[in-house]
Amino acid sequence: MKLSPLAPASFPDLPAIDGVRLATAAAGIKYPGRADVMLAVFDKATTVAGVFTRSRCPSAPVDWCKAVLGGGRARALLVNSGNANAFTGKRGREATKISAALVADAIGCRKREVFLASTGVIGEPLDPSKFEGVVGAAAARAEPDAWLDAARAIMTTDTYPKGATHRVTVGDAAVTINGIAKGAGMIAPDMATMLAFVVTDAAIDAPVLQAMLDRGVRDSFNAITVDGDTSTSDTLLVFATGAAGETPISDSGDRRFRPLRAALDDLLRDLAHQVVRDGEGARKFVEVRVTGAASKRSARRIAMAIANSPLVKTAIAGEDANWGRIVMAVGKAGEPADRDKLAIWFGETRVAVRGERDRHYSEAEAAAHMRRREIVITVDVGAGKGRDTVWTCDLTKDYVAINGDYRS
Amino acid sequence: MKLSPLAPASFPDLPAIDGVRLATAAAGIKYPGRADVMLAVFDKATTVAGVFTRSRCPSAPVDWCKAVLGGGRARALLVNSGNANAFTGKRGREATKISAALVADAIGCRKREVFLASTGVIGEPLDPSKFEGVVGAAAARAEPDAWLDAARAIMTTDTYPKGATHRVTVGDAAVTINGIAKGAGMIAPDMATMLAFVVTDAAIDAPVLQAMLDRGVRDSFNAITVDGDTSTSDTLLVFATGAAGETPISDSGDRRFRPLRAALDDLLRDLAHQVVRDGEGARKFVEVRVTGAASKRSARRIAMAIANSPLVKTAIAGEDANWGRIVMAVGKAGEPADRDKLAIWFGETRVAVRGERDRHYSEAEAAAHMRRREIVITVDVGAGKGRDTVWTCDLTKDYVAINGDYRS
Repeated sequence: MKLSPLAPASFPDLPAIDGVRLATAAAGIKYPGRADVMLAVFDKATTVAGVFTRSRCPSAPVDWCKAVLGGGRARALLVNSGNANAFTGKRGREATKISAALVADAIGCRKREVFLASTGVIGEPLDPSKFEGVVGAAAARAEPDAWLDAARAIMTTDTYPKGATHRVTVGDAAVTINGIAKGAGMIAPDMATMLAFVVTDAAIDAPVLQAMLDRGVRDSFNAITVDGDTSTSDTLLVFATGAAGETPISDSGDRRFRPLRAALDDLLRDLAHQVVRDGEGARKFVEVRVTGAASKRSARRIAMAIANSPLVKTAIAGEDANWGRIVMAVGKAGEPADRDKLAIWFGETRVAVRGERDRHYSEAEAAAHMRRREIVITVDVGAGKGRDTVWTCDLTKDYVAINGDYRS
Repeated sequence: MKLSPLAPASFPDLPAIDGVRLATAAAGIKYPGRADVMLAVFDKATTVAGVFTRSRCPSAPVDWCKAVLGGGRARALLVNSGNANAFTGKRGREATKISAALVADAIGCRKREVFLASTGVIGEPLDPSKFEGVVGAAAARAEPDAWLDAARAIMTTDTYPKGATHRVTVGDAAVTINGIAKGAGMIAPDMATMLAFVVTDAAIDAPVLQAMLDRGVRDSFNAITVDGDTSTSDTLLVFATGAAGETPISDSGDRRFRPLRAALDDLLRDLAHQVVRDGEGARKFVEVRVTGAASKRSARRIAMAIANSPLVKTAIAGEDANWGRIVMAVGKAGEPADRDKLAIWFGETRVAVRGERDRHYSEAEAAAHMRRREIVITVDVGAGKGRDTVWTCDLTKDYVAINGDYRS
């Protein structure tokens, strides 16, 4: 797989975080000879929050995580690539129990403190005995600074590992947040994300962490789309080890809440953008801004109608400033919009205004913007004050090639 | 443009219908040297019914038709290809008035008895003076059997002209129904259709004809999708000249209503399938059947989630019996579905049952079905008794190529 032309220059330097150790292993689940298992081991005080796919057919690990999340505590995270353990029936459920038990035995914790995530092919039984040979050794050799290896082990069709890190002062403590993610296709909003795991050494109670996360995904992972398709396995987990040493944040009114939330929001947006930049076959990173909508919610729907339109996405792939297709997508969204007040910009170039072509616009200027790697489309729909922004990529022949021959 | 491999063997022989005459002309709207205008002239008794795009940004001709449809009478239909007269503001509205006046003058009727449809590029002003030189002559030379020419004149990215005809006995009269359509991309359901025009010599009052049409589109044009995108210009008009000579049907309880409706339903489905078979870049015609849903409406939503999924459509293009992506699409639909009762068939081969892979299924059999031109996907979602069927095509590199370079 060729590196996405939209990839960041390099993987950021993710520092060690007190309270978490990481290891990877090659369990031969699907890809021979590459690491396909990632184990994270957390200290005892670690709290956890999560959001998951809204698919009506969630994978067995998603069911598992949802069931144990209520405990609010995590001691381990086991992730595998190559097999999603989705649509695997009773055997799939058994596999999650066996996997959690293996990890619990290896590190000495309860099963319900073990979180699981799987990504890869749907419908193939996952053989949990594959983990037997590797989990114990992985737990033993886990180390604090294996973030790049961890990000690599969870990749499937990704062309680069995805990571982000932030430092922020929370009260009197210097706190670190690291995150890794995977995802390149089957990416759609309102369903959490693909797989993303965030760890901080901040101390924060689980319900407060959950509230922070629920809000954070709105304008990050829930505001991106590659193909409008939704995985059965989307999982975003945030772990707080508490090792930075302050008393835990137990209330969103705590003065330490806001700076931590701001840092988490930034990190989630960064990771979400990296997923879009690795969109299957993507050559353009596209920001879609909608203003003048009836509400933020309405703006989101219009923006997503644009971002998910195959005709808009192929036009962008063709570097064509085809604003007629933007009009089409706005119309299709079914949201309040005043056709005769509509205005559209490509970058800084206003191409349409008051419901018709802007007579003064320069086609050359618009075309120059379309040739860029990063495209900004702005639409004012003339119906109110709601605004929102989402991110997507173009739809290329490579997307079809990658997905027309994935299983074989 | 290469002929779609899914094209019918030939254009059917559409007989003359009493009460309508057709002509085409080359007005040079966009395509030099080809007929891009179609004029139909109807006898005085002709009633009309129509359904239109639900786009919030409809074209000027759609607005025009909706405004004059209430009259229930039609004397003429003027259609052009090459320019959609959509998102053209005040000038677009003026263009419809001028066009209707030109036709009304040429054939001696009222403007509000003239119906208009335009298809092509969005956002370019349509110069109605282009019609001036051609409408009078076209009206003069219109003839009853120019159906193939008419079907050709309304094409844009279509690779073949689309037509269908039915004969049915209605009361004591032998009635004919002819229809033509165009459409290859920007095709999505619940928004009427692309352009389709149907004429019958049956006699039927406009409100009864409208009721018949409203029901007829449900399982034909509203049950197809190529790319999930919705045109600003979708228009389906049915004209009944009454020339077959019976007293008009004025009530849906009339014993002649049902046979006529059945014939219209068949014809609409035939035309709708022809549109899918000409889907941009399509190589496979796909029928998606959903059973066991909570209701027909729910079954439709699940079927459409499958039919619109880029991952399902690219898998079909790759001849890959990737039923995991069907599970994904069912889950994404958000409708009631019992994951652990789900069953999936490709053709006659059941590949999944009771929420997991069917242990006895033959991959070779499933693969053989995927190599066919016509694919049938059946999904039972185990939640109730609702069922529905929709039709779509695969998503190929050619779709991207066609739409990545349309304007230039």
